[in-house]
Amino acid sequence: MDESIKIPTTRNGTTTFNLLLKASEACFFEKGYHGTTVADITQKAGVAAGTFYLYFPSKMSLYRHLLNELSHDIRKEIASKIDPSLKRVDQEKAGIRAFLEYAIKNPHMYQIIWESLYIDRSLFQAYYDAFAKRYIKGLTPAKEAHEMANLDLEIVAYILMGITNFMGLKIILDLGESESKIDAVVDTIMHVLKHGLFTAE
Amino acid sequence: MDESIKIPTTRNGTTTFNLLLKASEACFFEKGYHGTTVADITQKAGVAAGTFYLYFPSKMSLYRHLLNELSHDIRKEIASKIDPSLKRVDQEKAGIRAFLEYAIKNPHMYQIIWESLYIDRSLFQAYYDAFAKRYIKGLTPAKEAHEMANLDLEIVAYILMGITNFMGLKIILDLGESESKIDAVVDTIMHVLKHGLFTAE
Repeated sequence: MDESIKIPTTRNGTTTFNLLLKASEACFFEKGYHGTTVADITQKAGVAAGTFYLYFPSKMSLYRHLLNELSHDIRKEIASKIDPSLKRVDQEKAGIRAFLEYAIKNPHMYQIIWESLYIDRSLFQAYYDAFAKRYIKGLTPAKEAHEMANLDLEIVAYILMGITNFMGLKIILDLGESESKIDAVVDTIMHVLKHGLFTAE
Repeated sequence: MDESIKIPTTRNGTTTFNLLLKASEACFFEKGYHGTTVADITQKAGVAAGTFYLYFPSKMSLYRHLLNELSHDIRKEIASKIDPSLKRVDQEKAGIRAFLEYAIKNPHMYQIIWESLYIDRSLFQAYYDAFAKRYIKGLTPAKEAHEMANLDLEIVAYILMGITNFMGLKIILDLGESESKIDAVVDTIMHVLKHGLFTAE
């Protein structure tokens, strides 16, 4: 089965395509992927039922596209906030803040990304694999320049992704009692990344 | 609606109850919560269809119980590996290793815990809130004894949970190319927690 989507070339087509994406995002967030039908999406988008299949061969192909877009968006947003002339530690700080700000503005993102674990585990794997690879690429020059500890960068990438993802969840889901002001959160993370958590023995 | 479950008091009852729990764990992992019916669970458990309702008023009540058990199990397992006479940094190391070993032995745990985000978000919040509170309780004496940096312990708890959860995922889902040997992973995490990631400016 050809699961490739058709990217529209006309302005009207693009408008409809984007309406379908926005509507599916809202539906997946509200009812989950399995609970959402194609009819739910077209209804929410306010377009004719058949329109969906002009662009997407299936609900799965749309979900994959959404996940790719989200991944691309997040990376673009982070990259736009990072000044490459800075030292890596300061780039990291800007990147962590950009990720958290993106998460606050797009609170549905976790549910959509993590639902891949239930839809098709390989999508979840591909998503974080790709994210880790970008991280490793960014960290490599810093490691070579001895701006950071001589550690396995893949493990480091997962440490950093774990910190930012859980902190984003804490902020979005309003977990815990502290107000989770973004400045305090970023400063605390940076303290750990600069000095560690435990005092020297 | 009374959603309380009935804990059996006889040996036969307990056997059936545990068969239902084990079967539901397997079903939720394979087909997800929404994709699993009560009939799937009783069939997998090899018990009569009506048996389910002797103990659980609903599939949701069983899921809640499973989540509570998992939470209790993980904490008990970690606690059993921690020697309270050690300094906190060494307790942390033992705890991180215990968590990762538990995750390796119970690879279905993430899917079951994270699916709460789709079943009832408040369950997800309660799960991580409770886990964070335990962490904070454990870290408080270390902070008071200046064995660790003077940081907001709630933020620190999410940093640590993020690191261990993402590392567990990396290992279970076989993400990335490094072999993710548990020793190397624990040592790398501990390096960051002791000395930070970036070298002093």
